[in-house]
Amino acid sequence: MTNPTGSLTNHTSPTHRTGTTAATVTGLMSDIAHLGTDPIRGGYTRPVYSTAELDLRSWFIDQATQRGLAVETDRNGAIWAWWDTPGKDRANALVTGSHLDSVPGGGPFDGPLGVASALVAVDILKARGTNPTRPLAVVVFPEEEGSRFGVACLGSRLMTGAIDPDKARNLRDPDGNTFADIAKANGLDPRYVGRDEELLGNIGAFVELHVEQGRGLIDLNQPIAIASSILGHGRWKLSINGQGNHAGTTLMADRHDPMVAASRTVVAIRDTARKQPQARATVGRLQPVPGGTNVIASRVDFWLDVRHPDDAITAAVVEAIHAQAQLIAAEEGCTVTLSEESLSPTVHFDPGLQKQLQLALPEAPILDTGAGHDAGVLSPYVQTAMVFVRNPSGISHSPEEHVVDEDAEIGAQALADALASLLD
Amino acid sequence: MTNPTGSLTNHTSPTHRTGTTAATVTGLMSDIAHLGTDPIRGGYTRPVYSTAELDLRSWFIDQATQRGLAVETDRNGAIWAWWDTPGKDRANALVTGSHLDSVPGGGPFDGPLGVASALVAVDILKARGTNPTRPLAVVVFPEEEGSRFGVACLGSRLMTGAIDPDKARNLRDPDGNTFADIAKANGLDPRYVGRDEELLGNIGAFVELHVEQGRGLIDLNQPIAIASSILGHGRWKLSINGQGNHAGTTLMADRHDPMVAASRTVVAIRDTARKQPQARATVGRLQPVPGGTNVIASRVDFWLDVRHPDDAITAAVVEAIHAQAQLIAAEEGCTVTLSEESLSPTVHFDPGLQKQLQLALPEAPILDTGAGHDAGVLSPYVQTAMVFVRNPSGISHSPEEHVVDEDAEIGAQALADALASLLD
Repeated sequence: MTNPTGSLTNHTSPTHRTGTTAATVTGLMSDIAHLGTDPIRGGYTRPVYSTAELDLRSWFIDQATQRGLAVETDRNGAIWAWWDTPGKDRANALVTGSHLDSVPGGGPFDGPLGVASALVAVDILKARGTNPTRPLAVVVFPEEEGSRFGVACLGSRLMTGAIDPDKARNLRDPDGNTFADIAKANGLDPRYVGRDEELLGNIGAFVELHVEQGRGLIDLNQPIAIASSILGHGRWKLSINGQGNHAGTTLMADRHDPMVAASRTVVAIRDTARKQPQARATVGRLQPVPGGTNVIASRVDFWLDVRHPDDAITAAVVEAIHAQAQLIAAEEGCTVTLSEESLSPTVHFDPGLQKQLQLALPEAPILDTGAGHDAGVLSPYVQTAMVFVRNPSGISHSPEEHVVDEDAEIGAQALADALASLLD
Repeated sequence: MTNPTGSLTNHTSPTHRTGTTAATVTGLMSDIAHLGTDPIRGGYTRPVYSTAELDLRSWFIDQATQRGLAVETDRNGAIWAWWDTPGKDRANALVTGSHLDSVPGGGPFDGPLGVASALVAVDILKARGTNPTRPLAVVVFPEEEGSRFGVACLGSRLMTGAIDPDKARNLRDPDGNTFADIAKANGLDPRYVGRDEELLGNIGAFVELHVEQGRGLIDLNQPIAIASSILGHGRWKLSINGQGNHAGTTLMADRHDPMVAASRTVVAIRDTARKQPQARATVGRLQPVPGGTNVIASRVDFWLDVRHPDDAITAAVVEAIHAQAQLIAAEEGCTVTLSEESLSPTVHFDPGLQKQLQLALPEAPILDTGAGHDAGVLSPYVQTAMVFVRNPSGISHSPEEHVVDEDAEIGAQALADALASLLD
């Protein structure tokens, strides 16, 4: 697929078919259920450009081609399947889709549900004899999870220019390969990754369907919802420095143990978040240094993830945590530093587009989400909206993530209805 | 040095010199101060059979040879420098010495001080014109710290049969090399590692001088002490299982976060140990699984080190910790398992030998220690005793470990006096 001009690569000559019978989401999902299963973690492990993800990309290209869509891979590795409007260019396109990569040991629906539902929505629209007044595209973004190169939504960030291409080229996967090398090995020209003015300019609106990653729809007893916003979130690194020493010879009274101070801080973080409605604060990563069983640690590094719909409250929560960490560290004879690693403000999806989706889907409640998405990355540049489908486990990034068959089909139908209302 | 019969290897033909001027401990220590310095951690990193430790072994062989001692490496890699008694065999030998390997980023004295002091004690005895009534040996044990193959006091454990030779042969270093391979590369025949009946049978008593690893002598304002015991200690692994989930989408109220449960347990461990005089309980190693910043952990593994002079109290402390961990885990919607990884009962050094040392060193206080030593491993098999030298930092396994020059010389003098009293 290498193309030194950086322009789009055609995979197929489009041969439009009309009046196709709609496939089912359940059927499409079962076609790919064997790809990237993880025998150790359970669930699926489908990092971008792994064999599993490449197989999923091939499957998508086949499916899109069968539907008569014109399939192209852009300079950043996103796949676009176009239902072109005869005689018109691709300006003001309506785009739907999601991603096919997964976290390690993830569920089957996070990403692929949005892609399969988009394909089925195309079938439904075709079966209804829809003649789109604007071009429609189904997109597959690469590396949404950031599980290989460490930057979530890397494909949409590159397309919009939200990440510097040089920084992206130098990202490394766990085996030490750069993104540039892996992109090249997969048919891209790494010199041309980055902001795609023309493609971005052609997107009129992006509607992403996604499995819900929380319990909102369980509590509301509804199969689908329309998204209002993505909670602002950030990552901070805390380091507590104490006094490394011998675990056997150092009396309890003589210790300045950063592990105790860090543990007290982890509990304080949870307690602080609990007091603030809608706030979430998590420590999922913690490393004592040197980390020996018989050694009192000299330092503990740990990472804090905080999210809240109101960015001012996120900042206040972090400030409160920092103050408590300082107090605790001082009580334990330690010192603490806190530094911001990333901060994304709350994304409010386009109110006009949300209103149109509400008219098309009058039963659907409005929910926010704490998870990041390509739709969030695109939202400063194009109108974006999201549709969520109920996850009866309420659990995400885990094999326990689930969608029942009936809800999956309701989701595709809703997506078709929403797209239809935007094509009129 | 390979010797297929597994018998001892001679390094030198002994040529006894008498009336030698005593070297100083400070002088000997400064001879080796450049070996194995660690520019990253600070201090010294001298794992067994590393270039640094091999250089230290060569230095020891040179020093022993210069003193006319007969140097031999035994089948387990310990080096023995014999001051033989003419016309007598080696039965009922008096042995002193320590180790030359270090933890990563350790201090200069932990191990080498005991070896250098032993060499100087030989000088002092020779300068006094001592004619030993029993053979005297200076020994260097390999892998006392366990920093390469994970088992502390591996050399003395092999010699005494306290570790199964097959288990030892299959131990691996961080690069994946087996102990058998590394032993072979360093001139040992791995088929013959293990209990050394003849050598062990020849040891009448072992006196190890070591830098103190706590603050006992600081508090007593004394330069040296005689050891009474090594605190019993053990390692236990705790695993707390919770519910892995998305850090952004999972409300605080819906979480079963094992990181919070583990943190509360770490604090409870400290509080439990504080209530029990002389008990030490430490968590220095903790691993959240999967360990992502934006993922609520599904499991946290952490290791508990507990020590107390009374083994029944050690057991009671662990039991109390287990009960509290279960309570905390239940409160957090998690489960916990605790399993013993190792347990060494308290070592009481030989009371008769301790009494003889007290007569020779009437000013020296009696102290116990929380650190393990080759003397502790040998104590079930031969009479053992230890002499501690003051460490003004009170810090061990760290570059901050220290001994002032004057105390180092007092230590060697005390060791010479103690040995002299046992040679009469």
